[in-house]
Amino acid sequence: MRLGAAALAAAPVAPAAVRESWVAAVPVTWNMVPNGRDAITGTQYDTAQTVFPTTVYRRYTKGWKHPLFNAPLGSGNQDLIPGPLLRGRVGDRFVIHFKNLDSAFRRPHSMHFHGVHYKPSSDGAYLPGFSGGDADVGYRHTWTYRLRAGRDSAGVWPYHDHSPSMDASIAGGMYGMLSILGPHERLPDREFTVVFAEMGALQTIDGRAFVGNTPVFTSQVGDLVQWDVMAMGSEHHTFHVHGHRWIAPDGTPRDTQTVGPAESFRIRWREQDPGTWLYHCHVEQHMMAGMIGIYRVSRP
Amino acid sequence: MRLGAAALAAAPVAPAAVRESWVAAVPVTWNMVPNGRDAITGTQYDTAQTVFPTTVYRRYTKGWKHPLFNAPLGSGNQDLIPGPLLRGRVGDRFVIHFKNLDSAFRRPHSMHFHGVHYKPSSDGAYLPGFSGGDADVGYRHTWTYRLRAGRDSAGVWPYHDHSPSMDASIAGGMYGMLSILGPHERLPDREFTVVFAEMGALQTIDGRAFVGNTPVFTSQVGDLVQWDVMAMGSEHHTFHVHGHRWIAPDGTPRDTQTVGPAESFRIRWREQDPGTWLYHCHVEQHMMAGMIGIYRVSRP
Amino acid sequence: MRLGAAALAAAPVAPAAVRESWVAAVPVTWNMVPNGRDAITGTQYDTAQTVFPTTVYRRYTKGWKHPLFNAPLGSGNQDLIPGPLLRGRVGDRFVIHFKNLDSAFRRPHSMHFHGVHYKPSSDGAYLPGFSGGDADVGYRHTWTYRLRAGRDSAGVWPYHDHSPSMDASIAGGMYGMLSILGPHERLPDREFTVVFAEMGALQTIDGRAFVGNTPVFTSQVGDLVQWDVMAMGSEHHTFHVHGHRWIAPDGTPRDTQTVGPAESFRIRWREQDPGTWLYHCHVEQHMMAGMIGIYRVSRP
Repeated sequence: MRLGAAALAAAPVAPAAVRESWVAAVPVTWNMVPNGRDAITGTQYDTAQTVFPTTVYRRYTKGWKHPLFNAPLGSGNQDLIPGPLLRGRVGDRFVIHFKNLDSAFRRPHSMHFHGVHYKPSSDGAYLPGFSGGDADVGYRHTWTYRLRAGRDSAGVWPYHDHSPSMDASIAGGMYGMLSILGPHERLPDREFTVVFAEMGALQTIDGRAFVGNTPVFTSQVGDLVQWDVMAMGSEHHTFHVHGHRWIAPDGTPRDTQTVGPAESFRIRWREQDPGTWLYHCHVEQHMMAGMIGIYRVSRP
Repeated sequence: MRLGAAALAAAPVAPAAVRESWVAAVPVTWNMVPNGRDAITGTQYDTAQTVFPTTVYRRYTKGWKHPLFNAPLGSGNQDLIPGPLLRGRVGDRFVIHFKNLDSAFRRPHSMHFHGVHYKPSSDGAYLPGFSGGDADVGYRHTWTYRLRAGRDSAGVWPYHDHSPSMDASIAGGMYGMLSILGPHERLPDREFTVVFAEMGALQTIDGRAFVGNTPVFTSQVGDLVQWDVMAMGSEHHTFHVHGHRWIAPDGTPRDTQTVGPAESFRIRWREQDPGTWLYHCHVEQHMMAGMIGIYRVSRP
Repeated sequence: MRLGAAALAAAPVAPAAVRESWVAAVPVTWNMVPNGRDAITGTQYDTAQTVFPTTVYRRYTKGWKHPLFNAPLGSGNQDLIPGPLLRGRVGDRFVIHFKNLDSAFRRPHSMHFHGVHYKPSSDGAYLPGFSGGDADVGYRHTWTYRLRAGRDSAGVWPYHDHSPSMDASIAGGMYGMLSILGPHERLPDREFTVVFAEMGALQTIDGRAFVGNTPVFTSQVGDLVQWDVMAMGSEHHTFHVHGHRWIAPDGTPRDTQTVGPAESFRIRWREQDPGTWLYHCHVEQHMMAGMIGIYRVSRP
């Protein structure tokens, strides 16, 4: 299935929806290896090596009344890293209310979004003498980001902290994804978010390392599955899924694709290969350091 | 010449051939720099720096009766690294009989193939609790991998060890390539395999480092030449050939192309530029550490 | 705006122009951080950390009579790194007269061009036993390189030293770019050259590090802007511009693109987003080490 050209085909755009979200920066104690082991090699990890305090994006109800998990239970996606998946369609507007509730570190934070249209006041990137309140949201303060998904916004895109705290925030998991459908694209039956990022000495997917800790994605034969893939940090990766291939937008079959920091792409296929498969970064040292997980396809 | 879209054009698929191969994992003493020098800088290398014992894939006659070299003499391709080039066409089935003859290390081994269709029992990837005999072939044991080249399998693809020994095997040269033609594509007159991989402190092409040791590829003006390029290991590379360009599948002219671990692509052109040319990885430190060779085009 | 396929469309090629340039290798004392600071973090840099003697390509009048700056004042592009932007159109011939005036180091130098057609005598790459005077131009000596822009030369391409001094020269900024229009492409209103390269401990754009030192590119709403992006050295980067997107040649929207050593691409858009924006390499450590600059769009 080819995305890209198809997603941009001349076609009437559905009436613009306004998609409002409430997000906060919150402190958490994060464990990269909750079960304490690498299931493939059998290596044991102590919590002293895998637990650290950090700040993440968390989805809230209106007015930041109640915290929610970022991903629905059972979706396979992790609970707090990455941040909430912000879904929309070409033509939509996004209104994202952000509050800094980072009571542990009390650092400034922000949200910077890729792929969408916005004014400088929604850029969220800190630059002394030029940027405003969008780029440097202090503890207990808020900012509302206003974005528009144009025809050239179809696809999946990163968002992340771009405040003065950016360097520490990205190392600590403060990133998420936008997923924007083309004018007439259908929602996939399953949508998996895969964020490759180094965290200390480990290499993580959605903030977790090693089979048994990284997301277990599941589907049934016949499902339309979509993989949302991106990288954050300072390293290039190669995304690979066992037993599957896809047609890249340039028309060539692929089963491995380079993704560098802040690059992102989505892959779709109609599932037809039952089994328990591996997906992983194919950079050998990254795979050995945790960047690998399980994808399970059942018969209907 | 554009590959990709063309290779996938709607067209009748030729009757499926069944392509049977016999491959073994065998111990070898490998010399990355047989002539002991870097021809460009004049630096000398001692065998203590360049020779090591390792395990490679080797082609055999039926029933593993007699060992063969992996590449025909005079093709420019190296004798034992990479493993045998497994050629086929969309629609074909591959039956690959693998035997572990690694008498030196007696480690388990396997074959994991990219780009083709197969059942989990031919995946060859070790995962405790899920994988079977395909992923952990012990010394003197065998496994038969059954693969199918679908329409989305046109191109060149890696295969490599994915057993518990994967990490050491890939560092030691245990990888090879599949080369699968589209339904109506013609065989090239020359086919060159270029595998970029780090080996200890050196950067190798097909297991060799420095001009004079890496493959010397040759063609004549008028030949249809095909380059099969892939990377293994933990680093990203950029493939470059002097004095030549090609049209990438997306329609843009290129003469340098990033290739990350387990990524692969093929390039074709009708040769028209006589001379002695360099091909190399354009990552400066990789080129200086050996990732460079000669391509010689003669007049007919 | 899609480049690539369009640039190659069947069309009559304009009568070939011959584009003659005079370039020399000259010693300079280069300062990577002229204002001595990182404007985002406020970190101060001493000249001992940022100034070094090096050799660069410099544009001259006919017969190397008078030195010129490589880029016009006010273009935003830097004065001496990268070398002169060599512009042309598919069908043109380039005649480039090169003189080694490296009086400080008295090393040999050369010019090796990507993307264009030439004979081995214009390759400029040093290979003992094969290469000639083109590849090893001694102090006070000259060489004339003769290139042809074919239909498969549309785009932007690196040139760089490929003599025995290559390694030091590339680390020191001895590289530049060719910019070749398709048969009927119009010149952009603004053309920005972005060369990502490591220099010692810093990460530079056109030889400069940190906002306030890297190029400040400017345009007006309505301008057709073109970004010429390439990398040199040993690292992979990801090019990102805030508040903008483009359609890649494969039809997908992008706002971040990997570029490895000697890879290059151009991006065009009709400007419509006023503001002060950041452009940068999105590899986190590279951005923190200086690989970031300002792009300012004014209202007409």
